[in-house]
Amino acid sequence: MEPVVWLGDGIEIVDQTRLPWEEVCLRLSTCQEVAAAINEMRVRGAPVIGIAAAYGIALGARSIEAPDKESFLADLSRMAEMLACTRPTAVNLFKAIDRMLSAAGGGGDAATIKASLVAEAEAIHAEERAATRSISRLGAELIRDGSTIITHCNAGPLATGGYGTALGVIIEAKRQDKAIAVLATETRPLLQGARLTMWELMREGIPVTLITDSMAGHFINRGDVDCALVGADRIAANGDVANKIGTYALAVLARENGVPFYVAAPTSTIDLSLASGDGIPIEQRRPDEVTLIRGMSIAPQGAPAANPAFDVTPHRYVSAIVTDRGILREPYVSTIPRVLSRASTTGG
Amino acid sequence: MEPVVWLGDGIEIVDQTRLPWEEVCLRLSTCQEVAAAINEMRVRGAPVIGIAAAYGIALGARSIEAPDKESFLADLSRMAEMLACTRPTAVNLFKAIDRMLSAAGGGGDAATIKASLVAEAEAIHAEERAATRSISRLGAELIRDGSTIITHCNAGPLATGGYGTALGVIIEAKRQDKAIAVLATETRPLLQGARLTMWELMREGIPVTLITDSMAGHFINRGDVDCALVGADRIAANGDVANKIGTYALAVLARENGVPFYVAAPTSTIDLSLASGDGIPIEQRRPDEVTLIRGMSIAPQGAPAANPAFDVTPHRYVSAIVTDRGILREPYVSTIPRVLSRASTTGG
Repeated sequence: MEPVVWLGDGIEIVDQTRLPWEEVCLRLSTCQEVAAAINEMRVRGAPVIGIAAAYGIALGARSIEAPDKESFLADLSRMAEMLACTRPTAVNLFKAIDRMLSAAGGGGDAATIKASLVAEAEAIHAEERAATRSISRLGAELIRDGSTIITHCNAGPLATGGYGTALGVIIEAKRQDKAIAVLATETRPLLQGARLTMWELMREGIPVTLITDSMAGHFINRGDVDCALVGADRIAANGDVANKIGTYALAVLARENGVPFYVAAPTSTIDLSLASGDGIPIEQRRPDEVTLIRGMSIAPQGAPAANPAFDVTPHRYVSAIVTDRGILREPYVSTIPRVLSRASTTGG
Repeated sequence: MEPVVWLGDGIEIVDQTRLPWEEVCLRLSTCQEVAAAINEMRVRGAPVIGIAAAYGIALGARSIEAPDKESFLADLSRMAEMLACTRPTAVNLFKAIDRMLSAAGGGGDAATIKASLVAEAEAIHAEERAATRSISRLGAELIRDGSTIITHCNAGPLATGGYGTALGVIIEAKRQDKAIAVLATETRPLLQGARLTMWELMREGIPVTLITDSMAGHFINRGDVDCALVGADRIAANGDVANKIGTYALAVLARENGVPFYVAAPTSTIDLSLASGDGIPIEQRRPDEVTLIRGMSIAPQGAPAANPAFDVTPHRYVSAIVTDRGILREPYVSTIPRVLSRASTTGG
């Protein structure tokens, strides 16, 4: 199931808030609708957020009827700002927006720019799809036959387009006939693990067992887990990784028990402008995502709650980062710039 | 609110599965009803399970109309076995049952034994209440003014009788006018933190913020937490601690960040018969406690799930164990037997 499909005059997305109960597709025709869908996490996952935002700008450009190029670009810039305000942590969003604005500045009349923006969004989409294919193949080398892999949140096709990052690696290992099993953490508060990872892996016929986030340490400590494998929302220049809240705990538990902790993410997730994870903004979402589950209260009336959506895992806990351009290891401060300076080897 | 009240011909319990939405008391008149209430976690928390089981045996004894003492004791033994099958991890259950069976063997006719069983159950209840008072006072010395304390699951008055263990310490620190704040983990799957700890601390006027279990590491790593404080279901002779699933992860995260990790539990929770935590049986509960929340599905139809209810925290992660007879530190293998050999100093 494709998380985002370009229709020529809009995009169709899978409403990820309604899975696994309903498979509902939404048609989004305006930049505003795309921004709302990102903010409400109907479309989610760092790479897919970038793809959706790119199409959002292409759709926004189509709606602009400006008298001159200057005001066209001013209108487009306002739309880009609206998209940039939807979610602060995943860098793919900002990179996609920057790339679209660069494409808009490429010259020609409004009609030419509008066409080039659609082409640029389609290029971003195609590159992200290709990156997941490359990540899946490279990462599968890390998965030994007979492994049990623990994953957190959802870094599958829904989150990334194409094959998925962390789940792409797992699915590829299965296709290589490796006997693997997966422990999927439910990933409170929004249960992307229970809802989406379980759904994707069960459809692939991969043996997967759901656990609460609190159980990860128990199974790792018992020796039931061979590696941990997650996606990423932003990776700093030193290899610090922002990912779904709970990732840091999983990384600490893995290292404490001598279990490798792998991150799988496209190079578009790397933010060289940040020297370390300290500078990554952590999205704070509504407390009622914690106090309500499917609309039902789980706490006393008026209970205060905190809801940071991400945490930062220091690079020293990260055994390897699987990118579309190779598997990176410490010292990330050297290996990350090196891989980014190389030409892409994904080959589409 | 008292979790268990002896009525003379039954007990009244607070149905902890219905808090915080409804404050419902249940009247239990038979040993079978008590066993079912423990199994279904309507009455829960290691010390309170022991108290309820003791009353369950006293109630069971009342119902026995055996022709002679031998068959009376045989009937009573069957009831004890039924109670012992309800939950395997909390040792207080087995200690209370053993103590009641010893009391039954004390001589006299059936009427005398029935009366002495009621007296023994009331003694267990009173001792557990007194123990929590002592734990609260001793433990409060560990809480510095201005502290933020993270706790997991529920070790308050509902779980322990009296003042609570971990929450008793927190409540006592507040009564000593220390400025404290609490982070309460929701404690999936059954949400005792969100439902019960939040309810108890909000009633006490203690500033408390609900977080998901997955957020604990993030807040500890940010430096927002001064200590972790939890209860226990069974403590082995070497200081290994079985407690609600997720406790091990919290302990690892605390130590990784130089934050003290404290356990508060009555000496009745210590099991000297086990040299280490390896021997502690871990209760495996129904998978649908993970896949359903308040009866609503959170995962795809047929999703496999695991549900270990407890984990074991190795003693090396435990900074101190606050018991009713003193604060214990490493080497627990020496300090635990020493405190158990001393006469109780709780003084009621």
